[in-house]
Amino acid sequence: CTVSRKREWALHGAPMFADLTVHELKAVRAYLHGIPEMALTDAKNKTLKKNSILLIELNLPRKHEALRALDRGQAKPPRQARVIIQFGNQNKPNITEYIVSPLPFPNSHVVKTFKEDRPVLFESRPITTVEYYHINNMLEKITTKAHKLLFETTGGFSFTNCSNRCLTFSDIAPRGLGPGERRTWIMLQKFVEGYFIHPVGFEVLINHQDLDPGKWTVEKVWYNTMYFDSVEELVEKYESGGVEKVKLPAHDDKDLFSTYIPRGQSNSPTNIHGPKLVQPQGPRFNTHDNFVEYAGWSFAYRVRSSAGLQVFDLRFNGERIAYEISLQEAIAFYSGDTPAAMQTKYIDAGWAMGSSTYELAPGIDCPEIASFVDLHHFFDTDKPVKHKNALCIFEMTTAMPLRRHFNSDFEGGYNFYGGLENTVLVLRTTSTVYNYDYIWDFLFYQNGVVEVKVSATGYIHATFFTPNGLHYGTKVYNYVLGNLHTHLIHYKVDLDIAGRENSFESIDLKFVNFTNPWSPKNFIVQSRLSRTEHKTERSAAFRFGKKFPRYVHFYNRNEENKWGHKKGYRIQFNSHAHSVLPRGWREENGISWSRYSLAVTRHKDSEATSSSIYTQNDPWEPVVSFEDYIRNNEDIVNQDLVAWVTVGFLHVPHSEDIPNTATPGNAVGFFLRPFNFFDEDPSLASKSTVIVRPGQDGNPEIQRWTPEVVGHCVTEEPFFYNGTYAGV
Amino acid sequence: CTVSRKREWALHGAPMFADLTVHELKAVRAYLHGIPEMALTDAKNKTLKKNSILLIELNLPRKHEALRALDRGQAKPPRQARVIIQFGNQNKPNITEYIVSPLPFPNSHVVKTFKEDRPVLFESRPITTVEYYHINNMLEKITTKAHKLLFETTGGFSFTNCSNRCLTFSDIAPRGLGPGERRTWIMLQKFVEGYFIHPVGFEVLINHQDLDPGKWTVEKVWYNTMYFDSVEELVEKYESGGVEKVKLPAHDDKDLFSTYIPRGQSNSPTNIHGPKLVQPQGPRFNTHDNFVEYAGWSFAYRVRSSAGLQVFDLRFNGERIAYEISLQEAIAFYSGDTPAAMQTKYIDAGWAMGSSTYELAPGIDCPEIASFVDLHHFFDTDKPVKHKNALCIFEMTTAMPLRRHFNSDFEGGYNFYGGLENTVLVLRTTSTVYNYDYIWDFLFYQNGVVEVKVSATGYIHATFFTPNGLHYGTKVYNYVLGNLHTHLIHYKVDLDIAGRENSFESIDLKFVNFTNPWSPKNFIVQSRLSRTEHKTERSAAFRFGKKFPRYVHFYNRNEENKWGHKKGYRIQFNSHAHSVLPRGWREENGISWSRYSLAVTRHKDSEATSSSIYTQNDPWEPVVSFEDYIRNNEDIVNQDLVAWVTVGFLHVPHSEDIPNTATPGNAVGFFLRPFNFFDEDPSLASKSTVIVRPGQDGNPEIQRWTPEVVGHCVTEEPFFYNGTYAGV
Ligand SMILES: [Ca+2]
Ligand SMILES: [Ca+2]
Ligand SMILES: [Ca+2]
Ligand SMILES: [Ca+2]
Ligand SMILES: [Cu+2]
Ligand SMILES: [Cu+2]
Repeated sequence: CTVSRKREWALHGAPMFADLTVHELKAVRAYLHGIPEMALTDAKNKTLKKNSILLIELNLPRKHEALRALDRGQAKPPRQARVIIQFGNQNKPNITEYIVSPLPFPNSHVVKTFKEDRPVLFESRPITTVEYYHINNMLEKITTKAHKLLFETTGGFSFTNCSNRCLTFSDIAPRGLGPGERRTWIMLQKFVEGYFIHPVGFEVLINHQDLDPGKWTVEKVWYNTMYFDSVEELVEKYESGGVEKVKLPAHDDKDLFSTYIPRGQSNSPTNIHGPKLVQPQGPRFNTHDNFVEYAGWSFAYRVRSSAGLQVFDLRFNGERIAYEISLQEAIAFYSGDTPAAMQTKYIDAGWAMGSSTYELAPGIDCPEIASFVDLHHFFDTDKPVKHKNALCIFEMTTAMPLRRHFNSDFEGGYNFYGGLENTVLVLRTTSTVYNYDYIWDFLFYQNGVVEVKVSATGYIHATFFTPNGLHYGTKVYNYVLGNLHTHLIHYKVDLDIAGRENSFESIDLKFVNFTNPWSPKNFIVQSRLSRTEHKTERSAAFRFGKKFPRYVHFYNRNEENKWGHKKGYRIQFNSHAHSVLPRGWREENGISWSRYSLAVTRHKDSEATSSSIYTQNDPWEPVVSFEDYIRNNEDIVNQDLVAWVTVGFLHVPHSEDIPNTATPGNAVGFFLRPFNFFDEDPSLASKSTVIVRPGQDGNPEIQRWTPEVVGHCVTEEPFFYNGTYAGV
Repeated sequence: CTVSRKREWALHGAPMFADLTVHELKAVRAYLHGIPEMALTDAKNKTLKKNSILLIELNLPRKHEALRALDRGQAKPPRQARVIIQFGNQNKPNITEYIVSPLPFPNSHVVKTFKEDRPVLFESRPITTVEYYHINNMLEKITTKAHKLLFETTGGFSFTNCSNRCLTFSDIAPRGLGPGERRTWIMLQKFVEGYFIHPVGFEVLINHQDLDPGKWTVEKVWYNTMYFDSVEELVEKYESGGVEKVKLPAHDDKDLFSTYIPRGQSNSPTNIHGPKLVQPQGPRFNTHDNFVEYAGWSFAYRVRSSAGLQVFDLRFNGERIAYEISLQEAIAFYSGDTPAAMQTKYIDAGWAMGSSTYELAPGIDCPEIASFVDLHHFFDTDKPVKHKNALCIFEMTTAMPLRRHFNSDFEGGYNFYGGLENTVLVLRTTSTVYNYDYIWDFLFYQNGVVEVKVSATGYIHATFFTPNGLHYGTKVYNYVLGNLHTHLIHYKVDLDIAGRENSFESIDLKFVNFTNPWSPKNFIVQSRLSRTEHKTERSAAFRFGKKFPRYVHFYNRNEENKWGHKKGYRIQFNSHAHSVLPRGWREENGISWSRYSLAVTRHKDSEATSSSIYTQNDPWEPVVSFEDYIRNNEDIVNQDLVAWVTVGFLHVPHSEDIPNTATPGNAVGFFLRPFNFFDEDPSLASKSTVIVRPGQDGNPEIQRWTPEVVGHCVTEEPFFYNGTYAGV
């Protein structure tokens, strides 16, 4: 099959992976709302006792069907939607998922089940705007009772009737201590710019399990290191002297603490724009809707509303390297001294991290030259929501050579100089999960390397300072503790190295010791490659805390490069991850993927994701449990393999996290690197190479395949290079 | 002391660290050549039995003297030169180092000794151009004897009289099996573009210890997996059928294998220039000779001819963070099946990696907007050698925010958006150590983070393919094996966190388990900070293969930030390093620093470097041995501490290393990250921040401190942002 035919088929297949259009989303909603038995009402309807759609997104085609289109140009399977409906208006409320098809004119729906037909606990559903509306109402009542306490504590802030001295709240998850619970610790904060780092020291546990908000209860209150069974108890003790009063320092509107407003000094000017990227001769990548080409690369992408960025059918020169690389989950597990702090175990797919893709600012979030793409999500809404400029694609220079060599003649001259600038295509979106902002990047290098990277920024999750809190974090403000936590991110990497049948090995080094063949009285000690083929899923699941092999290598035992080596790719980690809880400890069951830095499974359409939108609110008995995928310990030799990759880092907040965590040093991820996949470096296809040789006349002779002059935005001077180094 | 006074003193002191000028270098040479007893002759003089200067470079002032200038504005100590002289023209040849001063008008010289007055073995000196001249002569004789064999093997290549079918050679180190030896394995290669990966399968062991090249001998020859005691023996057996003849495939001049010449295909255009950096409003950093200022940073730099790039007196807003951060050594230890391959243990300071700083190409090695600086070296020369454009300094955008947050109101609007673009100042030089090119970067972020990074590129060190070689590498061409090796790089990081007296701790997490204070029938398990103060050098030396703590933290116990935390910095590794030989095994003694990913010592002027230019040729009993620095196991509490950092990676070559190793994924290093050093993120001083808030009229209101329009090279459009996301 020719490269151009392969390209045609890739382009033909890419729409299978495109997110649902506005039209499709509306059609699915209309179809379902037209089914009388479902009795659907608007999501925005204020009652909780209703049946309504929570989420609509693309349902991926089964892989073998998709491959018929991608590898043989056959017809694409019909497009389908995945829909989550919350049936609250019935005796036993439940959550049901449906597959609705065919799009854009749906006429059927079937129930989508989970492994072993596990039901989705109604209490495990994500929280909606309507539920927050009722929580807000309840907080109004609570804070009215505690008005004086709050007012005195904060020096004038209140939850209601507050103009510029308002309080707001943050809620914590999981919402309880076991399955079926729905009770949430909520902490109050000053509603100022950057309220996340303005806790006022008042936390309340609300039980909001009942679908009648009138039946919701306050179960506990925390104030100044003490617990109370009710707001009334706290207020009474506060008034009677039974509790020590906290008095925050007077609020200073000029204290810029939590804001972005510049202050401080700099040696050099910053009131002018710094270096910027330009494309003096236009873009060097192509896009057709969700299909992208750059250098030898092609791929399709989508942004799953439930969990975020995905890349499909990744090819280089038409040969597939991965069927899918996709974000699965992001968690941040905290420690602390307040009840909210010690309860916080954020599992962000449950906070709709895939649809928290807000607008990207040109020149800051992505360079000005980026292509910005709008995304549409249908989550907790009655019509599709457009997120303008929520994804960007751009090529950038890394200001570094991809390759270079100066070939000295060691006599003040040179045989040649060769170099190729390192440019990379970046596919980026972000998730702002409440306080935190994750920047999700896929980077495609000219030499067949892919980098998958997450950078963390945004506000830290902070709680009220107590002296005991110093065991769990850092004081970052008068009365604020930045709580220690670990970020872990999970990716699915369905490598298909030159075909579906792949094998997996790890490569280590072993010292060998033998008689020196040219000096038999001596010995030589050197390292030798030691390869271990991992034949089953269990043997290919690498626990944190155990030694990780030097190389992990996925290869196709039926395909060789020109020199007889199996075509392969390896995964190289750039991560400081570790486990966050003892294995099997309560919430840890919801994140069983996090036991492994790397696990390799046999591909199954039924094992599409390692987590779900329900894990946050039921991590104890999750409907999707990664451990299930390896429990049957299947044979993984010459099979369709999927690599599951966990990266992350420990974040002990420090003063420099104020106002926000900064990205330098806070990026983790992994590289997919060719390992004998090609016959030589595929970036040799780039005509941006420059070679300089000493000419006959002694002057350098420049060989290049790009225009001599870059252009007026960069320089009007042609490239120059001399190569010699001489005595002076 | 005010910030402006501190800046003045930093600027005043920076020249102490500036490399010697051409004038100074010449003055030192003239002074020494004027001393009759030294009987110095030209380095280029063809005899080996001579006294001549090998190297002249700046001798650093003692730290306490330098600090008087830097911290109190006092007079700078006189400038001094360090000179290495090889005394070959005497009964017992020796190497002696001198300190020559004061510059630029020297009038004194004193011998500089090593620990315990260890003598420098004459045989441990680096090899010079003159010695190569004699090796070349010897190879001419050898290859003349083996002319027919070589000609037949290579299909027409020869060492002499060869026009466009020439052979060249590469020599391997160390040069022998123990101290005092000087015998080198040399392999022949086709002299074509990229000869490093054209071994022809002929290796010869030359003993060149005698200063009379006429007495040099051939000790062994290797051809087609067999060893011979002489060239004659090989030739005889070759002719008589006692050895199987190798016949390389006919040389194909059109085979571009080892060259940079483009070939292959790409989906998207590469014959135009890709994205480039511009400075639409001019540079945002200042330089005064070797003194640089950027954002809050200031530092001085130099490029030591012996070992490379160094940064001194690193400050942020006038407060010192490090006195010195400097490259010490770079090694690559190989494995293989041929004698040259199994002997190769490159220790690059012995190959003058500090003076192998060749010209940087604008637009490839550094962006076009970089400031390029010439360097001068005096190594194996009779006059200073100017390396034009050998260092560059530039600011770049990382095309990524330093910080950003989108503060949603969860109703389709937002409270505010804030963002600051991530730009960074890069200080770069390279070392081309024969086949390999290292790119040495220091990156200074706006938020007080420093990144130290080395990227590897250039040609792999390759040897002749044998089937047994596959245990030690990868076949990358018909008859070529890319040999596995490990790169390790050593840095000295003399942190001075707000003063000289610092302490060191590691921070880990420990699970705690206690009764849930708000639900006593339940337990809470969470992580708690566990700090270990390391009080002695031994306890602060972290061996490879042992567990490394989550955080390593250097702090000043006498200085606190605004919130009462000790001012500190931590080192965050980005590395895949491991030990290369068993501890104490022969050559491993020369690289005892490589036992530790991190070691912390008490500062001593006498422990300025962890390696020396002599280690390569005597790794067995090195004159500078890092292990000595920690052997006395000094107290390191509240002392002037130095962190010694080892980074690196295993390199198993693969087809994609042809023609050159590419930088993506082949960069390692470390971050220095503030940890409660500041009161808040110091990048708040940047006026490049942009804040967007919804205005009264519903339109976004943009608050910024930089011009609204970037300029014609980037965009004539003002910044735009909307912030809302709405149903459609
Ligand atoms: Ca399985
Ligand atoms: Ca697969
Ligand atoms: Ca010591
Ligand atoms: Ca120090
Ligand atoms: Cu964090
Ligand atoms: Cu290498």
